[in-house]
This record gives sequence, C-alpha cells and structure tokens, in this order.
Amino acid sequence: MRELEERIRRDGIVEDGDVLKVDSFLNHQMDVELFAAMGREWARLFAEEGVNKILTIEASGIGIACVAAQQFGVPVVFAKKSRTKNIAGDVYRVEVPSFTHGGVSDVIVSKRFLGPADRLLLIDDFLANGAALEGLLELARQAGALVVGAGVAVEKAFQPGGDRLRAKGLRVESLARIQSMSPGHIEFC
Amino acid sequence: MRELEERIRRDGIVEDGDVLKVDSFLNHQMDVELFAAMGREWARLFAEEGVNKILTIEASGIGIACVAAQQFGVPVVFAKKSRTKNIAGDVYRVEVPSFTHGGVSDVIVSKRFLGPADRLLLIDDFLANGAALEGLLELARQAGALVVGAGVAVEKAFQPGGDRLRAKGLRVESLARIQSMSPGHIEFC
Repeated sequence: MRELEERIRRDGIVEDGDVLKVDSFLNHQMDVELFAAMGREWARLFAEEGVNKILTIEASGIGIACVAAQQFGVPVVFAKKSRTKNIAGDVYRVEVPSFTHGGVSDVIVSKRFLGPADRLLLIDDFLANGAALEGLLELARQAGALVVGAGVAVEKAFQPGGDRLRAKGLRVESLARIQSMSPGHIEFC
Repeated sequence: MRELEERIRRDGIVEDGDVLKVDSFLNHQMDVELFAAMGREWARLFAEEGVNKILTIEASGIGIACVAAQQFGVPVVFAKKSRTKNIAGDVYRVEVPSFTHGGVSDVIVSKRFLGPADRLLLIDDFLANGAALEGLLELARQAGALVVGAGVAVEKAFQPGGDRLRAKGLRVESLARIQSMSPGHIEFC
C-alpha cells in the first residue's frame, strides 16, 4: 500500500540489528487515519471471505485491529500475554517467544470468544519471524476456528516468517513488504 | 451513556470481590461499534477543549482510544508497561501498581510523543482506584502537557479513584458509573 510505504520512508528509522522503528505512527504513537486506510485495504482484499471476527495480540496489534474491524463490521478479540500462571477459567493457551522482551510469553484467549463458527482474520503490526502469527494460528486451531488469512502492516520480507506462513497455506496480506534495509535506506519488495 | 449501561446490564458479570467482567464486549472481545458510540459521546463532551492527542495505557485502553480518536481526528499515544528495566532512549516514566497482576509496573512514554504543546484527553476502560489515570497524569506532568480531562468507560463509583481525581481538579467523564453491584445486580449512579 503506497500510503504506508511512503510513511515508512518518511518517518521510519532503521537502527542497527535489523530494527525498524515506526513508533511515531504505528506502535507507540498511532495515526488512526492511516489505520483506517489500512483497514479499508484489508476489507477490499478479504471482501469475499466472510470474516466474522478479527483476532490480534496485545499490545500494538490492538489499535490497528480495532480501527480495521470497523471496516468489516465485526468484533475484535485480542490474545493476552499472561503474566500470571494461575489464570482461572477456560482458556486456549500457547507459548510465544518474545524477541522484544526475551523469553517466552504465555498467550491466552478465553474459550468463550473463539469457536468453530468463527472465520478469523488475524491482524498484527509486524511480521518478522512469524512467532506471534504462529501463536494466533495455534489458538485458532485449538478453538476449531477457520483462519481466512492474516493482515500485516509491515513485513520484514528478508526474515523467514512470511515465507514459512505462506508455505503452510496461510494467505498473508502485508501492506508494506521490506526487501532490505540499512540505516538511512529502505527498499520495498 | 444509556447504550453502555444497557450493555453492562445485559452482558456484564459481577463476581465476588467487586469484580465486574465486561470481557465479552469491552476488554477482551471488543465491540468496535460500541466504541465508536463512546467516542462520539466523548467528542461531544470535550468538543470545546482543543484536544490534540489522546493518551492511554496498554493494553485494554488501546482499542477504545483508537476508535475514539477517529471522532477527534487526533493521534493516540499509549503508555507502555515495561517489562525490561534497561529501556534505551529518553522516556517519561512512572510506577503504577497493578491490581490485576499484583506488584508494580514501570510505565513509560517516549519523550518524542508528549510535550508542552499537547492538550491531552486521557482514555481508559476502567476507573476504580485510579492508579492508571494517576500514572498518566504524572507522565503528562513530566512532559509539561495539559490534560483537559479523562474519558472512562466504566467507573466503579463506590471505589475512591473517581472522587480523588475530581478533587484534584481533573474533569472525569465516565460513560457508566456503577453505584453498587453484587452477583446478579448492578445499580448505576
């Protein structure tokens, strides 16, 4: 999506270690008008899929998912990164490695909010190694829900997550795919 | 706001220990059409205040804030609960006690995204003891930003946070104020 690519070129900051900072508009400060445009694009791409729920993961996916969901007219469920091991009640649960914080997060969704009737669109801000989307896929599998695809804002296409997920048969629609980057330079696919 | 009160009556679940579960529409599964109605109400209430940014705190405030921000035409900044003590870069920082998880969270906002030119509306899903909003007020104070008020979805008016914040001079607009509750019964102010 040209609007997102232009914004990344203008306001994204590439740091050493393959870090792309887009925190001025995507995942700390958030440009909700841009999110609405992204939502319209995913709604166009997935128009035929009968999406009835959007599934995302806290924290930075939530804003994008909620604004996008308005374009679909469906609710959002966000998977929670649990810091307490003794959660009461019935939850689907998966372990997701965290590259930002290190270690592993226990990620959960209440069984009341995912089930076999659901046609899910997964939404997340970044796709790099694919750990977060793999976790959401596993939660959907446990629930017996159908995943019609994933909407990603920024894919680091030089990292393996996108290829691996597509090889599994997941439709991944990334609105900006970065082929390579270095400080001061970003090339899109 | 009648629409929110009715939804709480219909789908809210009161559990022992003054716990109100609204996770089917507010803070786990999220009804974004309801969030839009809430956003319209805050936009009406704060129409004269020149809000130029919304400040919230992860995780469950983010969705409400982003949908509401579309009614104001302003960006959202969310304060991050830091799990790493060694954050690089310049941040405003405050400690916020967590009643859900226990202990204390280090809550941070990048100095790039809050400053003296900002007229902030704080948004959060719940107001009970007021710890989260007090933390956001402190971050705004560090930044020299003006806080024009706080928009809260559900206030437990029988807990001290709302009164304490209002006594400090903060304008708090809670869309549903619960006077008392017990399993099977909710009374609004």
